[in-house]
Amino acid sequence: MESLSSHNIVIMFLSFGILLGSARILGEAAQRLRQPAVAGELLAGVLLGPTVLGMILPEWNAYLFPPHGPNAIALDTLATLSIVLFLLVAGMEVDLSTVARQGRVALKVAFSGMVIPFIIGYAAAWMVPQILGRQADADPIVFALFFATALSITALPVIAKTLMDLDLYRSDLGMVVISAAVLNDIVGWTIFAIILGLMDANSSNAWDISMTVVLTLLFAGGMLTVGRYLIHHAMPFLQAYTRWPGGVLSFAFTLAMLAAAFTEWIGIHAIFGSFFVGVAVGDSPHLRERTRVIIDQFVSFIFAPLFFASIGLKVNFATHFDFVLVATVLLIACVCKLAGGVIGAKWGGMPRRDAWAVGFAMNARGAMEIVLGLLALEAGIIRQRLFVALVIMAIVTSMMSGPVMRFILQHTKARRLQDTLFSRYFYRRLAAATRREVIREMTRATCEAASLDSEGIEAAVWAREEVLATGIGSGVALPHARVPGLREPLVAVGISEAGIDFDAPDGQPANVIFLILTPEDDPSVQLDLVAEIARRFKNEGMTDQVLRTKSFTEFLALIKQTGEPS
Amino acid sequence: MESLSSHNIVIMFLSFGILLGSARILGEAAQRLRQPAVAGELLAGVLLGPTVLGMILPEWNAYLFPPHGPNAIALDTLATLSIVLFLLVAGMEVDLSTVARQGRVALKVAFSGMVIPFIIGYAAAWMVPQILGRQADADPIVFALFFATALSITALPVIAKTLMDLDLYRSDLGMVVISAAVLNDIVGWTIFAIILGLMDANSSNAWDISMTVVLTLLFAGGMLTVGRYLIHHAMPFLQAYTRWPGGVLSFAFTLAMLAAAFTEWIGIHAIFGSFFVGVAVGDSPHLRERTRVIIDQFVSFIFAPLFFASIGLKVNFATHFDFVLVATVLLIACVCKLAGGVIGAKWGGMPRRDAWAVGFAMNARGAMEIVLGLLALEAGIIRQRLFVALVIMAIVTSMMSGPVMRFILQHTKARRLQDTLFSRYFYRRLAAATRREVIREMTRATCEAASLDSEGIEAAVWAREEVLATGIGSGVALPHARVPGLREPLVAVGISEAGIDFDAPDGQPANVIFLILTPEDDPSVQLDLVAEIARRFKNEGMTDQVLRTKSFTEFLALIKQTGEPS
Repeated sequence: MESLSSHNIVIMFLSFGILLGSARILGEAAQRLRQPAVAGELLAGVLLGPTVLGMILPEWNAYLFPPHGPNAIALDTLATLSIVLFLLVAGMEVDLSTVARQGRVALKVAFSGMVIPFIIGYAAAWMVPQILGRQADADPIVFALFFATALSITALPVIAKTLMDLDLYRSDLGMVVISAAVLNDIVGWTIFAIILGLMDANSSNAWDISMTVVLTLLFAGGMLTVGRYLIHHAMPFLQAYTRWPGGVLSFAFTLAMLAAAFTEWIGIHAIFGSFFVGVAVGDSPHLRERTRVIIDQFVSFIFAPLFFASIGLKVNFATHFDFVLVATVLLIACVCKLAGGVIGAKWGGMPRRDAWAVGFAMNARGAMEIVLGLLALEAGIIRQRLFVALVIMAIVTSMMSGPVMRFILQHTKARRLQDTLFSRYFYRRLAAATRREVIREMTRATCEAASLDSEGIEAAVWAREEVLATGIGSGVALPHARVPGLREPLVAVGISEAGIDFDAPDGQPANVIFLILTPEDDPSVQLDLVAEIARRFKNEGMTDQVLRTKSFTEFLALIKQTGEPS
Repeated sequence: MESLSSHNIVIMFLSFGILLGSARILGEAAQRLRQPAVAGELLAGVLLGPTVLGMILPEWNAYLFPPHGPNAIALDTLATLSIVLFLLVAGMEVDLSTVARQGRVALKVAFSGMVIPFIIGYAAAWMVPQILGRQADADPIVFALFFATALSITALPVIAKTLMDLDLYRSDLGMVVISAAVLNDIVGWTIFAIILGLMDANSSNAWDISMTVVLTLLFAGGMLTVGRYLIHHAMPFLQAYTRWPGGVLSFAFTLAMLAAAFTEWIGIHAIFGSFFVGVAVGDSPHLRERTRVIIDQFVSFIFAPLFFASIGLKVNFATHFDFVLVATVLLIACVCKLAGGVIGAKWGGMPRRDAWAVGFAMNARGAMEIVLGLLALEAGIIRQRLFVALVIMAIVTSMMSGPVMRFILQHTKARRLQDTLFSRYFYRRLAAATRREVIREMTRATCEAASLDSEGIEAAVWAREEVLATGIGSGVALPHARVPGLREPLVAVGISEAGIDFDAPDGQPANVIFLILTPEDDPSVQLDLVAEIARRFKNEGMTDQVLRTKSFTEFLALIKQTGEPS
């Protein structure tokens, strides 16, 4: 059998390793900057691909990512496998009861978000085909249909990832967007199958196309009813009679791959198969959290970054860049998709702010657009420069959706302890021996580090402490105050080996002191933080573990690992 | 960029899905028959490959697993990635302190297990090259060196999997075998690099070969010292400043891939790189159990089965089958490798029984043999029929090692509750209302199902019950007796909705009654089972969960999921 040579294997692992490493580093960096991780992952591909590395060190780029031959196929295999597995996870996260509740709204969003861009796109492509980069000899109807479809499709994987990154995936809003995107994509791919059919004059078009439509509907419907029922009933058997959780894991993967093969075969994309398998598997209450976490972590941190980074490798964004075309495509795409999404959401009765968030979510394009564009390019419908413009439009709309949604929804992350901890507010060895002294020591150091007025704050903390001592037992004390003018909650941590009496109900001295300063106009955050600390330290031995940490890094690592999964 | 066509994608997912599904089904079946899972996984490939499917339905085989073109490359990509990731996990499981303790023995086993087969193999190949299938025009020295090396190499992945399947991997014996196999393989691949060097008259052989040897030693030594130190110190930072456990997960994978590229580049196989990364990462006490479990489960149940099944696809075991050659190769291989392993282990001071187990473990060949054989075939050193004989030898020795080791060590699985439960001893609705009645009801039904004499057993259980009531609280009772002549422990489970008074310390009636019958000559098993049940039901709400189960399958699923990981 044909196989990879030793040289191919070297390149393969080198390129996979570099791709995964840089996608993850930039993904983490993006999250630090409060952007969705997917933005950093896409950027990693652009940097390593023809656009940047290919310009600066073309021989390195050609060495790592040869455009032809076994290594190109190996990379495409990994990317294709990754996107299919990512959609399995995205499907598993779908909560069918929410979809059912949001179904009416989702239908309206999908309809309006599809029809409006389609009509505008068709009209534009019909009127000014040359400006939009039609191949000279391409059929104008086919080109107009393609352009209209390209504007109408929402990128299910990108928007799923963005919603997950923003912690909105399982919310009502998230499920409206996902349901609408699924409907949208199914219709979009069906239209695309029609386009390909129109181009191929030899095939019995009408028959092929109607088969695709019928089989797609049968598959989706079958998976959500019979498939779901069978999976639900197979699950306890698998858990009882195979190794656990491995049995369920390989069952889900096998099904996902077979379904991917099926949907690709009937003429829509492989990702739909695994998505619907994910929905059916994830809906079973027999799927335990542990199995879900294994699949989710592995796919989110290995496969998804690899896929999103691989997109950037596909084109040179510099040489085929045509500013006017890019701006035109981007403008038309955003305006008509936003209009469609917002109108649909308002029609469905959503409040204005949510409707705009839905609009920007539906506006995200990505992988689908690029696959579509690639097929059109290969089929001779469009030119390179339109392909580049479509890819840039896809990436820009994808990168835009996260930040804009965050801005519109004024979405702040659930305030968790780990997000408020910083090394400059960490005092490993407190000198103080009494309650009064430790409050002075910690407020002064903290206020100096944060450039705050220490006197007023110290007085406020002590006043609160005198009303009722804040020792909560288990060696923990939580002196606190609300501070006028503070914008973000600030938690300082002090550790005292000897312990300080904070008049706790269990009589134990406090070894770990959290000084909690919160904005005056945000009363709930103080409660949230106090509750979280109490919950974490209910765990026996937590205080001892904190006493064993030697640095802020170790302390933070301990807090993150013993807490709720992030 | 060159990419997979839609047709390629259909075949790819179809073949991956079928391969994974059948490997896992036969793997589970092998375990039911008390064989290592890897035997079933290898068999899945033989059934789907040219040997069986290719004979019965050649067009199906050619459709699913085309020998050339993008799909062959895609399958090889997945198989190569899988084996590298599997070795990462195998490396993570290595316990360096055990290796250090067993180092002296391992060294002797590796030395003797290498030198003896090498000398015998070299002599045989030198004397009867035609019988052993040398290519007519191949250099006799090169052929003899190849044959000797092929006999000497131990299959690290296969033996690692077998030891894991037998629950022996982290034992002293397991670590002797793994350390010896690692040393063995490093030397083997170095010799093979020398062989390839000898064949290629144009290259500056001596220089290339000594570079490989030096770089291999530098890499292995560096990973185990500097690499281990750096990874150990990077871990808390990753856990504190990246998402957890995803940060550590992608760190380990990125390192593994880069190291795989490096070791493949220096002339030994990619799997060594990821193995040593695994050793270094797994050795850090900062690697949390949860991260380890995610990697382990995913790789063991997805990647490993795919790889082992893919081996069987590579050759037709029927057409190139030469019985005399196969028997000769198999005989020489087993005799000299067994002799080497056993002599080495006894020389290292191991007891006779363990020494034989080590011999059979070292005797397992597999992937490495096949890769080596494939390279030799492509380089024109050996003929097809020797290749087939080597592959069969590899598979037979691999399949032999598990059962023989189990037999030699009289290895019985840790007796766990879930292994003793069967639906025929499960009584969902007990009719009895008193202790006396329920013991009668359960012993009679159980003895009937198990064809035992019920009278004596009922008397024994009741006598024990009268001495001291067996209600342990939380709604559980554990009537029990030792039964002369019984060979396996037998646990019957009865559920009473109303509850039966078993005089428990907490005064609660018992809803779940375990009737435990154990062999008279095995006193410890009763204690083990009682302790396990008590531990499981300490968990609040466990009894309520049992009362909610509707069938034996649901009950068994509950027991497996709430227990220790399997």
